[in-house]
Amino acid sequence: MDRTAYFNNAATTFPKPEEVYSFIDKYYRESGVNSGRGQNNSASKLTQDTRYLMLELFHCPAKKVVFTPSATEAINIILQGLPISDNYNIYVSPFEHNAVTRVLNYLQGLYKLNIITLSVNEKGLAYDLEKTNYQFAENKPNIVIISHASNVCGVVAPIKDICAMSHQYGSINVIDMCQTAGLIDTDLSSNIYDFVVFAGHKTLYATFGIAGFISNGDIKLKPLIYGGTGIDSANPNVPDTIPERYEIGSQNIMAIAGLYAALNWIKKTGIDRIYAKEKENHNKLISVLSKYNNIKIITPSVATETVGVVSCIFDGYSSDNIGQILSEQGAEVRTGLHCAPSAHRFLGTYPAGTVRFSVSYFNTDDDFAKLRQALDYIDENS
Amino acid sequence: MDRTAYFNNAATTFPKPEEVYSFIDKYYRESGVNSGRGQNNSASKLTQDTRYLMLELFHCPAKKVVFTPSATEAINIILQGLPISDNYNIYVSPFEHNAVTRVLNYLQGLYKLNIITLSVNEKGLAYDLEKTNYQFAENKPNIVIISHASNVCGVVAPIKDICAMSHQYGSINVIDMCQTAGLIDTDLSSNIYDFVVFAGHKTLYATFGIAGFISNGDIKLKPLIYGGTGIDSANPNVPDTIPERYEIGSQNIMAIAGLYAALNWIKKTGIDRIYAKEKENHNKLISVLSKYNNIKIITPSVATETVGVVSCIFDGYSSDNIGQILSEQGAEVRTGLHCAPSAHRFLGTYPAGTVRFSVSYFNTDDDFAKLRQALDYIDENS
Repeated sequence: MDRTAYFNNAATTFPKPEEVYSFIDKYYRESGVNSGRGQNNSASKLTQDTRYLMLELFHCPAKKVVFTPSATEAINIILQGLPISDNYNIYVSPFEHNAVTRVLNYLQGLYKLNIITLSVNEKGLAYDLEKTNYQFAENKPNIVIISHASNVCGVVAPIKDICAMSHQYGSINVIDMCQTAGLIDTDLSSNIYDFVVFAGHKTLYATFGIAGFISNGDIKLKPLIYGGTGIDSANPNVPDTIPERYEIGSQNIMAIAGLYAALNWIKKTGIDRIYAKEKENHNKLISVLSKYNNIKIITPSVATETVGVVSCIFDGYSSDNIGQILSEQGAEVRTGLHCAPSAHRFLGTYPAGTVRFSVSYFNTDDDFAKLRQALDYIDENS
Repeated sequence: MDRTAYFNNAATTFPKPEEVYSFIDKYYRESGVNSGRGQNNSASKLTQDTRYLMLELFHCPAKKVVFTPSATEAINIILQGLPISDNYNIYVSPFEHNAVTRVLNYLQGLYKLNIITLSVNEKGLAYDLEKTNYQFAENKPNIVIISHASNVCGVVAPIKDICAMSHQYGSINVIDMCQTAGLIDTDLSSNIYDFVVFAGHKTLYATFGIAGFISNGDIKLKPLIYGGTGIDSANPNVPDTIPERYEIGSQNIMAIAGLYAALNWIKKTGIDRIYAKEKENHNKLISVLSKYNNIKIITPSVATETVGVVSCIFDGYSSDNIGQILSEQGAEVRTGLHCAPSAHRFLGTYPAGTVRFSVSYFNTDDDFAKLRQALDYIDENS
């Protein structure tokens, strides 16, 4: 069977760099033992080296990296762990994923919270900084949570501007970089970024099983998970030190090996070159999709920065229906609400959802040719 | 460099069956995409097949399997999610890991709990069922938590007898099979086992990143982690269905592929043959260790069933010191408290801890020869 044309990279990038596959296989065969749970320090050293590469990627050598099994878990550790009080003003982007909104929904059952949506121009999909400024003045931000790039429409948020503003009010700023870490070169050295979440298996080109957050290390979170850490074992509590406080149980050395190889690949290839290539593939995608009159692209009308994620509606078809046909025709996309119902409400595509196409560094001309064929097939049969 | 003689299999088994390495590499290269987050169902099918193999291994096709990134997280999901009230009597074995005791310590801050240790004969290390019967009659068990086999001294608990007794009182029974799943053939079809935890990377011969629990599906746990599930996305809450309620975020398809291959390897090899081989290696280990007068083995004095985990004390040396020397001499062990300070308190080896040797199916005669050489070196230089 021909290889599927894979346009579901916002779910997980596929394929990975060859170095990631081969390093995981080699490392796990030769040294796949516990980090910090024996005398053999190869796994501990690999983990440390991977932390260092993460901090180097984000230009913030003085910050702390905590590894978690998933970005969802990282967001839960942060949001459930933060000191929260009644009447807190919590700002979110209009594009938040259920990993944020479902945690906030749970927290709303515990506290009286004002959840406020950051101002975004509905037509242009651009963040409105002037209005945000007014919003913050009117309701002092306690916590601000922003998806750096939407997993539905790709719109990139001006996190530096917003976090600088909210930081003036003492807000704790949480950035979700699941769709941008390793793709958009971002300097996180400033203390305006309190917690920044990353997912290994998406734009970092590593695998499932490794994610985490970068923090200033000054806000002590209430732990979400209790258990062994390989250090300080006699303590009935989890340790106070970071990262050990939040890295409970055996670390996933196999996935850390993949992240290590992926970070080295990003460094060698160059983050700007990776982003340029994704933009090129993004443009090819838009150019293919624009050829069909029955496809409506949900896209910013002004020059807003976007990553390679494009949501579409097909005249006369449900998104699931299109996904099924495209799959049969050899093109893989994702359809529906993409675990982000709020984003779809904002975009006016709720509850039907959209057909989402997302590219990576690795999409080929062959992929785009297959996609054209599949879309021609839909066009001819509609 | 020569391969290290690896006697730290209770931390993680190493090496894995060749099938595990090769299937992970092949599967992730060819099909490493999300389960339930696109039209491509290869990952969803693999996940379903792996659940089926788990239930088949435990002879309980009607039960539910929930996958989690680690056994520690599974234990947290269960213990933090159970309906608990003040004055609950919670029984634990004397051998519990910090994954249990630190969660209970946290829960003791929320509720007034009576934590009671199950009766074990201190000299023989055998569970005393008669005394347990009295304990339960005196203080009705609400929750019983038992490590099926101790990760410190290998003693296997008679879980069927204890759970049958406590079930009579309506107790919720939680079994930690981290050191026995895939090794000791266990029929979990009875409803006396409410929650049974497994760790992929230990006796199941899979990798880090995959663990979970098997449940009757009738006790609804309060969720620990909130977020996307790929289904029911418009719901502001996590779904009520099992396993989706507890499997939040992208599933780790790479690790599930490894578990799938490992379960097939166990099925093909035969669980009884695997256990027999581990027992053989266990006996070889005891036989080597018994040759040295300066080594005291912490072992049951009566015929209690044990898995291949042996804790020792070396005359005149700290356990860390011995671990260091053994490592330099090419033998890998684990020293200290093994994240189980309670077990060491019970065994009288707290706070110094022990030197723990643990075997697997894959230990070779070469490993034992290396171990003898290393122990000779210590003996000659002491």
